[in-house]
Amino acid sequence: MSVADITLALMSATVINIISMDMSRWEPNARDRLARAALDLYAERGFEQTTVAEIAKRAGLTERTFFRHFADKREVLFSGGVELQETMVGGVLGAHASAAPIDAVAAGLVAGAATLQERRGFAFKRAGVIAASAELQERELIKLATLASALSDALRQRGVGEPTASLTAQAGIAVFHVAFARWVDEGNELELPALIRDSLDELRAVTAGAT
Amino acid sequence: MSVADITLALMSATVINIISMDMSRWEPNARDRLARAALDLYAERGFEQTTVAEIAKRAGLTERTFFRHFADKREVLFSGGVELQETMVGGVLGAHASAAPIDAVAAGLVAGAATLQERRGFAFKRAGVIAASAELQERELIKLATLASALSDALRQRGVGEPTASLTAQAGIAVFHVAFARWVDEGNELELPALIRDSLDELRAVTAGAT
Repeated sequence: MSVADITLALMSATVINIISMDMSRWEPNARDRLARAALDLYAERGFEQTTVAEIAKRAGLTERTFFRHFADKREVLFSGGVELQETMVGGVLGAHASAAPIDAVAAGLVAGAATLQERRGFAFKRAGVIAASAELQERELIKLATLASALSDALRQRGVGEPTASLTAQAGIAVFHVAFARWVDEGNELELPALIRDSLDELRAVTAGAT
Repeated sequence: MSVADITLALMSATVINIISMDMSRWEPNARDRLARAALDLYAERGFEQTTVAEIAKRAGLTERTFFRHFADKREVLFSGGVELQETMVGGVLGAHASAAPIDAVAAGLVAGAATLQERRGFAFKRAGVIAASAELQERELIKLATLASALSDALRQRGVGEPTASLTAQAGIAVFHVAFARWVDEGNELELPALIRDSLDELRAVTAGAT
């Protein structure tokens, strides 16, 4: 290979890079468009029955673009869990130093709930898709268990010992689980942060032995 | 086929039946022997690495006998869950009519815990096998979710409304989860029914806002 060949090769590579950068400028909000197209198709045809090719087509994008944003079909539904977890952990860690463990967890849950409330259209449709698939329900349970671990870690960072940290985190997830189910069942009637607070009050009453 | 042929065929079938009955007499406690052999192998080599052929050999039985008792390798670890669930549901339904929902759930959890305590050798070894496999941990989470649903149904049968029934059941499972982890971690030091009661007291303190 001569120096000229190498120069040509480098120039071609540069042109290719410029072309791909340029193409990506033609795909504004590609991730959002793909996520919305995927969710619509999962709701219409079922998660199992939808292919990545169909999702890309509905979004007016290519399969390659899909795989630049998501590892697979399932990740469209679960990638938001990372952000939700970070928000909740941030809420626990950011609670006042004098807050009781349950109040720190409540702050985390309410912070996470507020972000879900903002995206309630997506969240409701997503919940319907998950309810229709045993595989996705299992994945959701695993996500909740991971969330419980993360909240428990955050409490330990606040100096809460065991088993208090685990128990408070698990109880918090129980509150979240029940509040979330009510939120989805009752449509737009009630806001998730308020339902979280209600469920926590209910948990207090229940554990105190109310009938 | 003549009448004699039919008679002969029926006699053969009878002889075959007698032989199989006789062979099964040579396999006392086949199910228990298979379960113990399987658990030992899972603990020694890992769940994924163990084959049904190896389990049968270790138990001194055939693969065919294994499949008469278990659908697959995983069922050895999870078939006991049905009995545990029945015991817990029985405990909830059998609690005094005046018992608060949380006390009815506690009665169910303690009844289930007592049966696990009796088989603690198996339960501890099983917990170690499950902790070593992501797939089995997922299955265990699903089992706990199913248990929560069953406890919630039992509460509704007692006339408890929603969301109290779901919340109490989920909180009960949180208590069970944490108590079970302590039981396994601390070896033979503490009994599971007592740990369940401790965790429930802790949950009461936590939700009341103890720090």
